[in-house]
Amino acid sequence: MAANTLKDNFHVDYVIRYRYGGNTASACNSTESVGKLETLLRTLAKTGLQTQVRQGDESTLLVFVRATDQSLRRAVYQSRVRDWLYGVRNSEPDPTGDNEVLSEAERLRVIHHMLILPRDEGGAGITPDHGEWKDVVALFPLHDEAVNKKWIKEWSQKTFLSPEDLDQIRNKFGEDVGFYFAFLQSYFRFLVFPALFGFACWMLLGSYSVIYTAINCLWGIVFIEYWKRSEVDLGYRWQTRGVSAVRMTRREFRPESQVRDEHTGELCGVFPASKRIYRQLLQIPFALVAAVGLGIIIATCFAIEIFISEVYNGPLKTYLVFIPTILLSSLVPTMSAVLLTVATRLNEYENYETQDAYHTALTQKIFVINFITSYLPICLTAFVYVPYADRIVPYLDVFRLTVRPFVSKEHASAARADFSIDPARLRNQVIYFTVTAQIVGFAMETIVPYVKQHLLREYKAYRKNNQSNGNGDSSEKTVAYDDPAEEVQFLTRVRNEADLPAYEVTDDFREMCIQFGYLALFSPTWPLVPVSFLINNWVELRSDFFKICIECRRPVPQRCDTIGPWLDSLGFLAWVGSLSSAALVHLFRNGVVAGTPPDISPKGLNNNNKGIEDISGWALLLTLFCSEHLYLAVRYAVRAAMDKFEPPNARRERAARYVMRKRLIESSLNSNPDTPPGETSTEGLEDQITPASLEADARDASLHDTDPTEKFWTHQRGWRESAQIGARIMAQGVQEAKKEK
Amino acid sequence: MAANTLKDNFHVDYVIRYRYGGNTASACNSTESVGKLETLLRTLAKTGLQTQVRQGDESTLLVFVRATDQSLRRAVYQSRVRDWLYGVRNSEPDPTGDNEVLSEAERLRVIHHMLILPRDEGGAGITPDHGEWKDVVALFPLHDEAVNKKWIKEWSQKTFLSPEDLDQIRNKFGEDVGFYFAFLQSYFRFLVFPALFGFACWMLLGSYSVIYTAINCLWGIVFIEYWKRSEVDLGYRWQTRGVSAVRMTRREFRPESQVRDEHTGELCGVFPASKRIYRQLLQIPFALVAAVGLGIIIATCFAIEIFISEVYNGPLKTYLVFIPTILLSSLVPTMSAVLLTVATRLNEYENYETQDAYHTALTQKIFVINFITSYLPICLTAFVYVPYADRIVPYLDVFRLTVRPFVSKEHASAARADFSIDPARLRNQVIYFTVTAQIVGFAMETIVPYVKQHLLREYKAYRKNNQSNGNGDSSEKTVAYDDPAEEVQFLTRVRNEADLPAYEVTDDFREMCIQFGYLALFSPTWPLVPVSFLINNWVELRSDFFKICIECRRPVPQRCDTIGPWLDSLGFLAWVGSLSSAALVHLFRNGVVAGTPPDISPKGLNNNNKGIEDISGWALLLTLFCSEHLYLAVRYAVRAAMDKFEPPNARRERAARYVMRKRLIESSLNSNPDTPPGETSTEGLEDQITPASLEADARDASLHDTDPTEKFWTHQRGWRESAQIGARIMAQGVQEAKKEK
Repeated sequence: MAANTLKDNFHVDYVIRYRYGGNTASACNSTESVGKLETLLRTLAKTGLQTQVRQGDESTLLVFVRATDQSLRRAVYQSRVRDWLYGVRNSEPDPTGDNEVLSEAERLRVIHHMLILPRDEGGAGITPDHGEWKDVVALFPLHDEAVNKKWIKEWSQKTFLSPEDLDQIRNKFGEDVGFYFAFLQSYFRFLVFPALFGFACWMLLGSYSVIYTAINCLWGIVFIEYWKRSEVDLGYRWQTRGVSAVRMTRREFRPESQVRDEHTGELCGVFPASKRIYRQLLQIPFALVAAVGLGIIIATCFAIEIFISEVYNGPLKTYLVFIPTILLSSLVPTMSAVLLTVATRLNEYENYETQDAYHTALTQKIFVINFITSYLPICLTAFVYVPYADRIVPYLDVFRLTVRPFVSKEHASAARADFSIDPARLRNQVIYFTVTAQIVGFAMETIVPYVKQHLLREYKAYRKNNQSNGNGDSSEKTVAYDDPAEEVQFLTRVRNEADLPAYEVTDDFREMCIQFGYLALFSPTWPLVPVSFLINNWVELRSDFFKICIECRRPVPQRCDTIGPWLDSLGFLAWVGSLSSAALVHLFRNGVVAGTPPDISPKGLNNNNKGIEDISGWALLLTLFCSEHLYLAVRYAVRAAMDKFEPPNARRERAARYVMRKRLIESSLNSNPDTPPGETSTEGLEDQITPASLEADARDASLHDTDPTEKFWTHQRGWRESAQIGARIMAQGVQEAKKEK
Repeated sequence: MAANTLKDNFHVDYVIRYRYGGNTASACNSTESVGKLETLLRTLAKTGLQTQVRQGDESTLLVFVRATDQSLRRAVYQSRVRDWLYGVRNSEPDPTGDNEVLSEAERLRVIHHMLILPRDEGGAGITPDHGEWKDVVALFPLHDEAVNKKWIKEWSQKTFLSPEDLDQIRNKFGEDVGFYFAFLQSYFRFLVFPALFGFACWMLLGSYSVIYTAINCLWGIVFIEYWKRSEVDLGYRWQTRGVSAVRMTRREFRPESQVRDEHTGELCGVFPASKRIYRQLLQIPFALVAAVGLGIIIATCFAIEIFISEVYNGPLKTYLVFIPTILLSSLVPTMSAVLLTVATRLNEYENYETQDAYHTALTQKIFVINFITSYLPICLTAFVYVPYADRIVPYLDVFRLTVRPFVSKEHASAARADFSIDPARLRNQVIYFTVTAQIVGFAMETIVPYVKQHLLREYKAYRKNNQSNGNGDSSEKTVAYDDPAEEVQFLTRVRNEADLPAYEVTDDFREMCIQFGYLALFSPTWPLVPVSFLINNWVELRSDFFKICIECRRPVPQRCDTIGPWLDSLGFLAWVGSLSSAALVHLFRNGVVAGTPPDISPKGLNNNNKGIEDISGWALLLTLFCSEHLYLAVRYAVRAAMDKFEPPNARRERAARYVMRKRLIESSLNSNPDTPPGETSTEGLEDQITPASLEADARDASLHDTDPTEKFWTHQRGWRESAQIGARIMAQGVQEAKKEK
């Protein structure tokens, strides 16, 4: 298969998109560009890579790169030896590499490693878009169109992907993409149960059922713990377990000082951990700003919406209703983008040493932003609007001032008196986030880029044609780019791929993580949530694959052995879910179902704040307290129980390691010159050994050593004598005992 | 030093105490005993161990064992090779063993391993007190009296032990004892701060200070996290990191079936994990029974005590007051012993495969029992007696029925009216548990056994003399045991040591863990708790060492890399502490200090149960909820911060591993026949390589391979040609861009 792909791709491993200015830059830096290109090509050749240059679009060149057999074999061997030494793989690699399949992902990963490894370590040291390599806009492998199409077709007819399908994804796109699809697949498979159960509960028990909530929380725990084990298992299956030990220093890491390591004797850049912690403390104000900033926007829009939809009934209401939605969908993404920029800056300022650490820290920050934007609106409805609307709505008079010109006074006061909490609002909101928003997301993520990409291509072609019509003399060259006939189709495809955006697996993980959050936090409100997600995720898996194949450049394969920070996020969401869903059930169980607001208002005693807090607050807090501790206890039990079962690949791995160790121990003991005779011959030699060797030892010792304590050991020569003496003492003892009687 | 010890101990490595019946058994099994002794001695000789037999006491023999140089060297090498293969040590061991110091602990551990390893794996397969070896009563090394005495003396003049002291303990007694003393030392050192702070708070703020409580919780978190890191560091320092990987099957493990492992091809005993989990579920009823059983005893005694001391004032009160104490101190240990037996049975029934797993599970069960007996009395006072006494005391009429004969009716009703809660009771109880009980514990643990041991020896000597006076003919033999003159002193010492009990490091850990619990759970009541513990632990460390050296047989050195289950227990106690101490502060802050019962009773609204729960319950729950989550958040932050700092030995270890890997990678790459010229020569060869080898590669490929796609790679021969073409395309592009303008 790999050979086929390379054939379709003209044996090209990587394409480097090189920008030489063209339309945007002036002609004067043309010679500079030529010089830089030469450096690039020479570096590549020196690293053992073959190159071909072709025209890209107006301002770029395409440098095609392939590794020679010899340099590739060497690099693969080097990479495997490193893995072996770091304990990622068990078996010593074979220098010829003939006995082991080289998957496409490994091939591409190794070549990528050759391209980016610093020059003093034998690589080309190319860092796209950075420093010396500012003109290298992109560095990407080419898609394997035939296989991609085949898979898209196959999978659209399947419910579940098989482990072999996942292996294929991993062999094509690398372990990180493989892990994403494995996770999505596990999640999808796990959703079947809550979907069926949720449907049953919806039919029989309605919303806010205690049983559904408990089962849903338990399901969350089991799913997360199951995935933890699957992850380990996959790590063994894909031989990436412990791959984070082979760590690569981040190129952007700025050490504070160079310190010669006293143990290794090497110079290495050091950045004090304490300093990083101080910088990390900035995360606290960041989280606060994010929470307050987004919180204000969301709360304001929310208040406006309530005012307009439920209090206001002046003119233009039909149109005004859209104002909060418009505000929300323009302000929140803007604010998020700003916060994201701040988060990235902050993350860079924290100056992480490895790519992994950088990535984990950034993921955490992004999670904070997403958590607020995704869940705050529902939380506001559930825990502020419904219980306290009676008391909050009067304050919405602030808005009334704004709209006073349009509202007659009587009208307004009548409206206020009429106001009643809309009991369906919470459910509608949950449905919006778990159904509508998912569909919109799918469209935004998959369909829109696809359409955009086609339009862009058409526009480019149109512009090219237009241009060529204008400039008669160079017409043929520019249209066909002067490509050899047999390459036209191929180069067109490469140019299209070069225009695509890069794929970020993090975005897809985030989407799934947020989705899981809705399920864990709010699904008691509408037990059909898992049904919606089940359907959505069937599509999601295919559309994500479609996205990777068609709408993005092929990602460079990266190894990993965990979904890392996302796992923590899932665990956190499940935990918060135990609080949130318990609160929902407690507050709404007797209320909304019957169509009346929940029974949180004071029970006739006194109508001030204290009353509320006293009576219902107590029960609510107790519910939360119990629910959370029940959650933690069950999690502990599930974790302990799951720990007892060793995943199959882990067992296989352990067995392999055991065999390897046993072999090594045996061989190392046999090479030991002191080896005494083996077990089988001992029987025969026993008498010989005892008097001969042992006693000789002892006597030698007593001769050389004038130490009187050695005499102790010469009383009984050999075990037979010891046994005789022992027998005599015993006989004596027994005799004495008899006498005593 | 090691040589010295061996000299004092007549070069004896281990002593086997062998029972031959003597007084208790009949004479008929004397021949059987002789046969068994012969088997024992032959087995030992076959394993490469030298033996000497001497008389023990009336019914036992002492078999002295020492390893021959040759067999010891071989066993040490074997053990080190195994460690190396399992990744416990980094450097390949030297077969002669000359370059590495052999500590006494390692020597003893290796010889012990030779003694207990199954015979088919080359050991002697001795399992004391089990099956075939029922007559082997004990197997122990001998104390190094001179060094022990020196250390006891030295340490009594020091405040802190140095890391070198700990190393010495580890070299003498093995890693598990070393870890205990390291833990105790860390704990002692950490106690200095809360002791000072607690003293200051006691002077300035009194009991139930919020500041003290917060700092105390924080201190608990920091201490536990610090110890986790110290543990890792010590593991590296003592080279036992990952030692649990070298796991030994428990001798008592009963596999359900023998399965041939499909990967290793070996037969191994299997016990299904699911079956074990079902058996583990029995822990739940066990914990319930323990809680209810102990709870009833404690609560009843407690109620009786309150009744007698605060309600009852009939005759004999002075004496009756002691009844509950007597009941408590007789019933609780009895019940605990019964529960402990049940726990051990349960643990055996759970049928663990390794000693570690067995030990961990047993520790957890013991912890449950200890948790209840240690903390329930104080919890009853704090959370039941003080808040609810008003309502509970009337029910104590049950007891009144019993004592009715002694109490006149008027008297009783007067007493009931008089009843008021004793506000100092809680503090007195805490002081009792943290001062008095610690001192009593010290006496029971150290002084009593010491006295008992001396009395026992004197009694034995007396009995012996008496006996010898009775039996004139054998008098001299039995008194002096027929010992050679130069061995008399030594053999007397060995006989004394043989009579001592075995040392259990678990018991000492349990004591410290329970102590930490008092600090975490109840210290806000009396901020001098850490002061008491600081003083106690200075003594504790010395007395524990004294106990090991003088009052117990020398323990067989065991390796470990963690204090294991105790760490989890500490974490759990700190967590519960965040709840318990918050509750104490909340309930008692305004109450007991001023000498009045705490303000938890209903605030005049309504006097039924609901009232109480409503008003104070709400605030209490909120306090608990906040306190717990604050605790969890701080713990997360402290953990994250501490993770950034690599402990010194871990860094050294990592550096060593890095150097080793680098060396191996280099050597393995140099041995690769495909190696291209090194970095330095590449510059010169560059031109040669490019046209010659690379192009030859490409042309060869295109000749052999009739594939047209190869043509793609022949357009530009070498990077120079590529660069020229690239320059041409760029020039064109720039030209076009100009034209367009």
